[in-house]
Parts: sequence; structure tokens; C-alpha cells
Amino acid sequence: MSDPIQFAPPGDRQALETGLALTPNFNDQGLIPAIATDAQTGEVLMLAWMNAEALSLTITTGQAHYYSRSRGELWHKGATSGHTQKVLEIRTDCDQDTIWIKVEQTGAACHTGKASCFYRRVDEDGRMTSVILPEADSE
Amino acid sequence: MSDPIQFAPPGDRQALETGLALTPNFNDQGLIPAIATDAQTGEVLMLAWMNAEALSLTITTGQAHYYSRSRGELWHKGATSGHTQKVLEIRTDCDQDTIWIKVEQTGAACHTGKASCFYRRVDEDGRMTSVILPEADSE
Repeated sequence: MSDPIQFAPPGDRQALETGLALTPNFNDQGLIPAIATDAQTGEVLMLAWMNAEALSLTITTGQAHYYSRSRGELWHKGATSGHTQKVLEIRTDCDQDTIWIKVEQTGAACHTGKASCFYRRVDEDGRMTSVILPEADSE
Repeated sequence: MSDPIQFAPPGDRQALETGLALTPNFNDQGLIPAIATDAQTGEVLMLAWMNAEALSLTITTGQAHYYSRSRGELWHKGATSGHTQKVLEIRTDCDQDTIWIKVEQTGAACHTGKASCFYRRVDEDGRMTSVILPEADSE
């Protein structure tokens, strides 16, 4: 396995926006939000958080890693469920405070068993409608 | 204009995951991350933050509103630049702590003039490559 990537601290706005060195702008808890989309369909699967270790492992292993805020530990997505995410592309945004990964999802992305965590549409009155049905596990 | 939506406080895990009432799980700063994707291409355009007012206005007006953390104020996206986002669909995730909006973007989504804020790909060594060129303003 590769050595962990040592991220340099974020530079000024110019460096953040135009630089070609990844200097993630972690929040005061050392975390950065990561959006995972299905590389084929473009659907958003989930949003989770990465710390430096999770981001480095995501980059070097090609498997999505996050930091579980509820468990307070590194989380290799799918390590127990088998529902791993193979990372096909990683991007960051202008101020380098968000990560976007395009993934090939095995099984359900959501712990509820649904293909995406975003299974409810919000209607104009603030009520919601289910738009993704639970699926039989594709494993 | 419609009255602001009064969001009920988040319920227990069961209610959050299976309920059909939107009870956003704002963080301790009263904010929730919102992912904006291009409704046609599925590309992620930006991630920004909404407070209750911004979320309510997004739902009731069909125009994306955020909360600018740097300016500390409500932000009607495109109000000054003209680069508005017409909201075609709103979703939330299993624990209702993230919003996903599918939008029709006028002009550039990013303040840098690029179509998306995610204009750099992260390579395996942690260096980056520009993948979206600056565009002439389509306005």
C-alpha cells in the first residue's frame, strides 16, 4: 500500500482556486464533506465526511473511505456490508472544501437498503414523496 | 410569496429515515449542506449551505437560496450575477442532514466563471488536473 499523502495546509484564495496541489480545506473538526455519485447514472448516492486519512486512503486505494462521525473512526465503506465503492474519479471544488467522488457502487449505497440515500423528494409544501423503492440486495 | 415553511425539529432515527415530513437536521450552526447538480447532465455544480430560511425559500420560490457563511447572510444565488438556479427537484437523504437540488443553471455556477466549481480532478499522487475550462459567460 502506498504511503499516506501528506496534504499541505491550504494557501490563500488564489492558491486554493488556481493551484494544482490538493490542499484540502478541512473544517475545524478536521473533516471535509464528500459527495459520492454513481459514475454511470450521475445520481447522488450519499454525502459523508472524510478526514485526512480517509481522503488519502480513497486516493491511494481507489476504494471510498470516510470518517464516521457517529462512531468516531475511519470507515472503509462496505468493509462489513460488502457494499464497497470503487472510485473512478475524484474532484475538488474552487475553495477545496468539498470532495466529489464518482463511484461504481456495489449493492446499496444506503444503510437502509436503498440504492441511494436520497430516496425522498421534497414537495412544494415541505412534505415528501418516496422516489426510490427498497431493492433486493444485489449481492 | 408563500409563508415560510416552519420545519418541525428532527425526530428519532426511525422518523428521520421513514417519515414523509421534512424535518431537516441542521448542524449546530443551524446549517445543512446542499448539493446542486445540473438536472440535464447530472454533473455536480457546487456544494453550499442553507439555513432554514434559505431552504424554505428554495422550496417555495423554486430558486436556489443559500446561506453565505463568509458574508453571514442569506444568499439568493445569482441575484447579483444573474447566474440563478431554477430548482427542478429537491431531495433529502436518510438522516435528513443533506439536501440535494437538481437545477437548471443560468450561466456559470462557479464564481470563477467555470461551469462547475469542481473543475479539477485529483490524480493518484494527490496532484490535480484541470478538467473544465473557463467559459465565456453565456449570459
